[in-house]
Amino acid sequence: MKKIDGGVTAARGFLAASAAAGIKYEEREDMAMILSEVTCVTAGAFTRNLVQAAPVVRDKEIVEGTGKARAIVVNAGIANACTGEEGMRCCEEEAQEMAAVLGIRAEEVLCASTGVIGMQLPIDKLRSGIRQMAGRLAGTREAAAQAARAIMTTDTVPKEAAVQTEIGGHRVTVGGMCKGSGMIHPNMCTMLSFVTTDVCISRELLRKAVKANVKETYNMVSVDGDTSTNDTLLVLASGLAGNKEIVEEGEDYALFCQALGAVNEALAKMMARDGEGATALIEAKVIHGASKEQAAVIARSIISSSLVKAAVYGHDANWGRILCAMGYSGANFDPLHMDLWFEGGGRRELIYRDGKAWDYSEEEAADILSCQEVTVTADLKQGEEEAAAWGCDLTHDYIRINADYRS
Amino acid sequence: MKKIDGGVTAARGFLAASAAAGIKYEEREDMAMILSEVTCVTAGAFTRNLVQAAPVVRDKEIVEGTGKARAIVVNAGIANACTGEEGMRCCEEEAQEMAAVLGIRAEEVLCASTGVIGMQLPIDKLRSGIRQMAGRLAGTREAAAQAARAIMTTDTVPKEAAVQTEIGGHRVTVGGMCKGSGMIHPNMCTMLSFVTTDVCISRELLRKAVKANVKETYNMVSVDGDTSTNDTLLVLASGLAGNKEIVEEGEDYALFCQALGAVNEALAKMMARDGEGATALIEAKVIHGASKEQAAVIARSIISSSLVKAAVYGHDANWGRILCAMGYSGANFDPLHMDLWFEGGGRRELIYRDGKAWDYSEEEAADILSCQEVTVTADLKQGEEEAAAWGCDLTHDYIRINADYRS
Repeated sequence: MKKIDGGVTAARGFLAASAAAGIKYEEREDMAMILSEVTCVTAGAFTRNLVQAAPVVRDKEIVEGTGKARAIVVNAGIANACTGEEGMRCCEEEAQEMAAVLGIRAEEVLCASTGVIGMQLPIDKLRSGIRQMAGRLAGTREAAAQAARAIMTTDTVPKEAAVQTEIGGHRVTVGGMCKGSGMIHPNMCTMLSFVTTDVCISRELLRKAVKANVKETYNMVSVDGDTSTNDTLLVLASGLAGNKEIVEEGEDYALFCQALGAVNEALAKMMARDGEGATALIEAKVIHGASKEQAAVIARSIISSSLVKAAVYGHDANWGRILCAMGYSGANFDPLHMDLWFEGGGRRELIYRDGKAWDYSEEEAADILSCQEVTVTADLKQGEEEAAAWGCDLTHDYIRINADYRS
Repeated sequence: MKKIDGGVTAARGFLAASAAAGIKYEEREDMAMILSEVTCVTAGAFTRNLVQAAPVVRDKEIVEGTGKARAIVVNAGIANACTGEEGMRCCEEEAQEMAAVLGIRAEEVLCASTGVIGMQLPIDKLRSGIRQMAGRLAGTREAAAQAARAIMTTDTVPKEAAVQTEIGGHRVTVGGMCKGSGMIHPNMCTMLSFVTTDVCISRELLRKAVKANVKETYNMVSVDGDTSTNDTLLVLASGLAGNKEIVEEGEDYALFCQALGAVNEALAKMMARDGEGATALIEAKVIHGASKEQAAVIARSIISSSLVKAAVYGHDANWGRILCAMGYSGANFDPLHMDLWFEGGGRRELIYRDGKAWDYSEEEAADILSCQEVTVTADLKQGEEEAAAWGCDLTHDYIRINADYRS
């Protein structure tokens, strides 16, 4: 498996386009679409928030129903959440427009929206955007990059990742794009993420691979503890790679899972790193845990703590807050028999061992915390399981961005 | 029942004192003590964090063991958490010093600490502080007020409340003090709170009253989602009011519960209002819920949301974030059949009804959100149960305070 430069057009059969529809932002593109040359098997993951945006409701029906799709249309600026019947109608009309313009079936069109909750989408602007995009569809690197940029809201950088692997002698590609960067918290991630692949795989195994992988990637990211109404991951597999269809767990399935996992983990970490106002990516690693679940719960609790996040922002080695966050996670462990390490910029410092502070250098610890990637490792000394979670520091800019988001 | 001006010395039999022991702060008092003239029955509530500070471990043993106490000694600046065996020994020596100086038994001395995690307490300074305080013990209003000031950390104002009621023809007083103001989140509140009363009540009923009331007061407060290692509520009842001992649930018990509840609710709200960096108290009320539990879970979720808190700071009527926080609370309700109101400064505005935005005035809503007390009411239209929770806005000052707390 190797990383390649690319996004949603990296895999065979996928085209992308973007347009400035003027939905909320001016002077930038705010709509994107992905089209597959053939009908794809699809799998996804959706917010578990009880309040679900209209496109989430519609996509779930398709993904859990036929499980087939050919296109995705996305807009930034307005989330189409808490918009009642009118919001649902708008989704349907958007899909109809896509179908008419692209010559495909509306039931094969998935929709996604991100932005302000509670406002209605301007359907005329969406229609106009769709028509513009239809004339621009391309399978180029540039088309993918522009699409990744068009779906951004408070993101500061577009987010793409792609890998290639070989399955049964055939080159298989997985590529994707996503956007953050607020309302981000496990269950699942707040985000829109779109992953395309040319692997040939049965619907059942694609679903299985996605379900398992989401737990270890998107659901291990937290920016602010708020699980949004719009969280959506959509994975489309075109089957054009030419490999023998993967219909059971085995070597081919494992290779695909590895590639899918690499793309999803890369996208998840990009979201954490670009969390609203963030200056650093915080990785929490829990090692030698008694169970995977225990390690994951503790890792998530560390990167979700406002106080830990603010301490990293201040480059303040206030490790007590980490112990505290571990302690209220709900998972069991022995605070008197564990170690805590800080890592960053190639350096590593033992901070706490077996019940009390280690004789560490405050200066060295502060230096580590001023790196752009900081890893906090908790060694539970219990078993062989481990987990990682990703978050970001909590900064003045998070407040600035969120105190007045709508204006 | 009536509110009175007072704190921990308001009830009969209680003396207080404070001193500048130089534990961390300079030029201010940082220790306090409360002494009862007689042995009290005691009840309490403690953090459910797995990582528990040494004084929490010691107090729990006493409160759940003999259930009797005569004195409480408190310090601010160092939390005595994650301090291993040395921390436990320090607590014991502190209690021994109290016993020697006051002529009471060490097993009747409760200890509490708040401040930085992971540092050892300087026992010599504690001893010196205790000796200073012993010479200053007084049952005056002023002594209580100074004690409330001495236990502050990042609090900006001292927090005291007291009420008087009549039970069986006898005047009964309940008074208390507490401190916040970071690491504050349900289960239970992060805080130290000390409540004294002269009611005559059995240990069993005092425990019952405290347990029930904590759920509706301190556990309904959140500042930042972090449940601390030191959360402690201690309630001491001297029995000096002269009322017939309350030994069963009945009118007398109900009157006492009402008085205890009034003090605890007042203290809890003061903590929320003085949350780190806060400019506003946010009250979330859930009415017409199907169950008490449902209403409480939703109310807590609203006041715990970073995005809701940042929106209030920005006076931005971003009600979608409130719906979103209700939706991920885990409680069931129907977002298409409920209302949302904003209240503040004597005004009230309907914002959302049955699935979509009401035609409200953005200007009026922004005016309401700029009040120092903002109430968000969610009417679930399901039943007759209700709950309230209290939090504060999330501001630039929260970041400033917490990015560099230790220096």
